[in-house]
Amino acid sequence: MPARRRYQLYYWPGIQGRGEFVRLTLEEAGAPYDDVARLRPSEGGGVPTLMKFLDGEEGGMLPFGPPFLKDGRLVIAQTANILQYLAPRHGLVPAAEAARVGAHQLQLTIADLVAEVHDTHHPIAVSLYYEDQKPEALRRTSHFVKERIPKFIGYFDSVLDRNGGKYLIGRKSSYVDLSLFQLLSGLDYAFPKAMKRIARKLGRLRDLQARVAARSRIAAYLASERRIPFNEDGIFRHYPELDL
Amino acid sequence: MPARRRYQLYYWPGIQGRGEFVRLTLEEAGAPYDDVARLRPSEGGGVPTLMKFLDGEEGGMLPFGPPFLKDGRLVIAQTANILQYLAPRHGLVPAAEAARVGAHQLQLTIADLVAEVHDTHHPIAVSLYYEDQKPEALRRTSHFVKERIPKFIGYFDSVLDRNGGKYLIGRKSSYVDLSLFQLLSGLDYAFPKAMKRIARKLGRLRDLQARVAARSRIAAYLASERRIPFNEDGIFRHYPELDL
Repeated sequence: MPARRRYQLYYWPGIQGRGEFVRLTLEEAGAPYDDVARLRPSEGGGVPTLMKFLDGEEGGMLPFGPPFLKDGRLVIAQTANILQYLAPRHGLVPAAEAARVGAHQLQLTIADLVAEVHDTHHPIAVSLYYEDQKPEALRRTSHFVKERIPKFIGYFDSVLDRNGGKYLIGRKSSYVDLSLFQLLSGLDYAFPKAMKRIARKLGRLRDLQARVAARSRIAAYLASERRIPFNEDGIFRHYPELDL
Repeated sequence: MPARRRYQLYYWPGIQGRGEFVRLTLEEAGAPYDDVARLRPSEGGGVPTLMKFLDGEEGGMLPFGPPFLKDGRLVIAQTANILQYLAPRHGLVPAAEAARVGAHQLQLTIADLVAEVHDTHHPIAVSLYYEDQKPEALRRTSHFVKERIPKFIGYFDSVLDRNGGKYLIGRKSSYVDLSLFQLLSGLDYAFPKAMKRIARKLGRLRDLQARVAARSRIAAYLASERRIPFNEDGIFRHYPELDL
């Protein structure tokens, strides 16, 4: 069998962000890929390479923003859309349509929560620094940790329960389990106190998170330099004053 | 050919909201459907029927929230996921995978903008009334109308341009064109002044919006009682103080 054509992933080089959901799926798939903006310009990489797509200087469907994935001539943006494209090609989602539709539904719900996490530190505008919207961030976050985290966590726990308690969808690990791992890891980083308060609700989801972290390719990835540490430029940020 | 099994759409009965994107696709498809929460209890309708799904008392994948669609035993939530399921069944998206992936990418970008529109009047918490977050709403909206509306509109105009200027994807009308119609109609309702300011940027998108409104099934739907008027309980709300 010939080696698979390499994918090109385009995402901001210094953060996990939304790109991390794609990285985890590519890593678990063992798929060859370039994390283009992290390559040197001499290797055809760097942020200008990414910007060319946003500026319309490349072919394919125009992305509104990163992450986007290039597979041959196809350019695919929107995180959940990329995962939905990749997963069936690498056995990371069940084949049946009902399961694929259900998996995508869960991924889109994770994406909704990720957007809400972003807005805890940017409730007014992405064009402003966090420092310029701190009072609003504090107010938004107080509702987020009290109301939204428990609601979403309760939801994913119910989904897990209805599917037998071990996987979110189907009878083996799927890309949605990888995404749930990333979501919980990010919430742990950003809001450790809130996550501690709901520890009792988190039992089965914690087991799932640990099982994903222990998968051999994921464990190798997390220990590698390819895994960018969480930081305060990303979506999941730890600001002590917001860790309510 | 036997009549198609009816779909059941579940959405809040008093607003267009996210459900409207699904209604438009079902109407353009000429597909038989029940808008369940708007039916009388004696017809098996009403909001309690919807709540049973959210409370986990029904089978299928658990929805985090409405809209969700029932097709036989399959329960599908997340607006863009529902549209992606419906469109190929009713000829409302090209058959080629690249086009379907591109259409979904555009729909998810529309969904992102819809979420931002929601947060103009609810920048702090969905659990609070607009009246309890008015200063923050004003601040968020000032950035939204100046920065975000032009950025998204510019994006969709570029996508339209790259595809020949008449349709967002493919060589005939698709569900994404319907969604763009709804998006522009909602922005017109909520932010008429901002939309007037960018009128020059809107030329081709306005033509597309008008062509969708003139499609026979859409025109009939918009003139019917099935089309709920925009109002201040929905996502697109006209608050004069936010129409900057």
